[in-house]
Amino acid sequence: MAEEVKVFAPATVANVACGFDVLGFALHEPGDEIIMRKNDSGEVSILEITGDEGKLPLNPLKNTAGVVVIDYLKHIGKSNQGIEFILHKKMPLGSGLGSSAASAAAALVAINELMGNPLSRAELLPFAMEGERLACGAAHADNVAPALLGGFVLIRSYSPLDILPIAPPEKLVATVIHPQIEIRTKDSRSILRHSVLLKDAVTQWGNIAGLVAGLLTKDYGLIQRSLKDVIIEPIRSLLIPYFDELKKSALEAGALGCSISGSGPSIFALSDSQETAQKVAKAMTQVLERTTIGYDIYVSPVNAEGPIVLSKK
Amino acid sequence: MAEEVKVFAPATVANVACGFDVLGFALHEPGDEIIMRKNDSGEVSILEITGDEGKLPLNPLKNTAGVVVIDYLKHIGKSNQGIEFILHKKMPLGSGLGSSAASAAAALVAINELMGNPLSRAELLPFAMEGERLACGAAHADNVAPALLGGFVLIRSYSPLDILPIAPPEKLVATVIHPQIEIRTKDSRSILRHSVLLKDAVTQWGNIAGLVAGLLTKDYGLIQRSLKDVIIEPIRSLLIPYFDELKKSALEAGALGCSISGSGPSIFALSDSQETAQKVAKAMTQVLERTTIGYDIYVSPVNAEGPIVLSKK
Repeated sequence: MAEEVKVFAPATVANVACGFDVLGFALHEPGDEIIMRKNDSGEVSILEITGDEGKLPLNPLKNTAGVVVIDYLKHIGKSNQGIEFILHKKMPLGSGLGSSAASAAAALVAINELMGNPLSRAELLPFAMEGERLACGAAHADNVAPALLGGFVLIRSYSPLDILPIAPPEKLVATVIHPQIEIRTKDSRSILRHSVLLKDAVTQWGNIAGLVAGLLTKDYGLIQRSLKDVIIEPIRSLLIPYFDELKKSALEAGALGCSISGSGPSIFALSDSQETAQKVAKAMTQVLERTTIGYDIYVSPVNAEGPIVLSKK
Repeated sequence: MAEEVKVFAPATVANVACGFDVLGFALHEPGDEIIMRKNDSGEVSILEITGDEGKLPLNPLKNTAGVVVIDYLKHIGKSNQGIEFILHKKMPLGSGLGSSAASAAAALVAINELMGNPLSRAELLPFAMEGERLACGAAHADNVAPALLGGFVLIRSYSPLDILPIAPPEKLVATVIHPQIEIRTKDSRSILRHSVLLKDAVTQWGNIAGLVAGLLTKDYGLIQRSLKDVIIEPIRSLLIPYFDELKKSALEAGALGCSISGSGPSIFALSDSQETAQKVAKAMTQVLERTTIGYDIYVSPVNAEGPIVLSKK
């Protein structure tokens, strides 16, 4: 068994337009890296976190990555195993790209590797969901499931948990722009209405069924026609400056669809080629270049693999 | 070109638990038969309707089957073509099994055959939807699409119309029981609430996405877990005596799922074998045998073909 591992886990796009709370997919970049080692301390400790501008707690009981490792060790009956790790946040926090999910996924894949992989990646999911409860107040799976499993993941049901991994159609490339403004997940959730019009719900379930069918049958036209959100996007987009312009620019550049990533402020677009995804990136950055808002931009095929063990010794 | 044709078109199950207004499938029985002939009258006339207990109008302008033929002939520039037909209703009216859709589908396939099939079956769909507007006040497609195309059909969008035919998994067999009570489609629709809880809508779109994925990948377990309706069934089932007992008996007999067919009062169950579907039929009939309510019962594999031209001359 390894004494030290280095693991990458990806950022993720949750909701995917019409799939609020039930669909997400993984990116190749950005993401988190974790370097985790066994030691003789009998405790879990976080040595260092980089890239978070000091915002994340080093106390493992208050840090998503720490909590999931402690829960995992308790579950496999190894609570006395000493563990230390360094977390390199290589992605923006509070961006709607599943920052806490990436940390949890990286930590879980790392600790599972150090322990000889007694659990499958799907079996790691409940631990990651508990990490989400710490990070955002609810045990959502639409970021952690694709962060752990890669590809698209449909969360058919939360109670009981029932997930369906969907291999991404090969041509799909995501463009993600992160406007450097802050929206707290809790705020973004609290502005949603508790009830929705039945006719809008019908439109939405036609679209989510169409999107999942399009992904399974690799029908890019159907994916394009289905990538619409008539319920959440019209409300949440009010919190994102220049959303309408960014979306319009992405669609005009040839994207199949464009919507909010998770609870925002990041915005994702899906295209059916690397070339189009790059054009979409250029069009979206041009919109924000005309403003005072800084941004990060990523172009990444959908990540079919999920977390990667980069090295072990 | 034929001078006379005889066509069968199938009954259909709309909604299919979690797919309110967006999903339906076709049965092998019951259904309607139409015998249609050209003549020199220059008009469309209905000679006879059997099996309707005198409830359906013989005036072609007030009859779904008549209206769709008239509209079809106008569309192809043959308004002066004389047509006469006999409609054998071999299924109960007002049963939630798409009675008007079956008549419209049979009439459209018959007239198209008589005219040399200038339109595809998918191209006949808009005419059938207009027939539904006459019959139930709205141009729904969840009965007419499977009645015309067979199999399962997802109606991703109504505006613009966007449908996805889904070949039925081979093992699926439907059991349908029609309690002989009357519920008008308009009543069954008016009791629905205009708004639904967001959390219920999320549950429902997880299920409809799961059901469509299960159908496409022939995953009977996923179909079983997804065949749930948390929005419409709890309300509409109040109009159907013994619904809870009937559903419970079907599930205990081994059905994958059970819900209301269309707007009811018929109830459908899906099973993964003919043997189980027969057991389900027996269990459901036993429930109604203990009551004063008469019933029709049907056991039918999902109909992958749709309407059939039985004869032509």
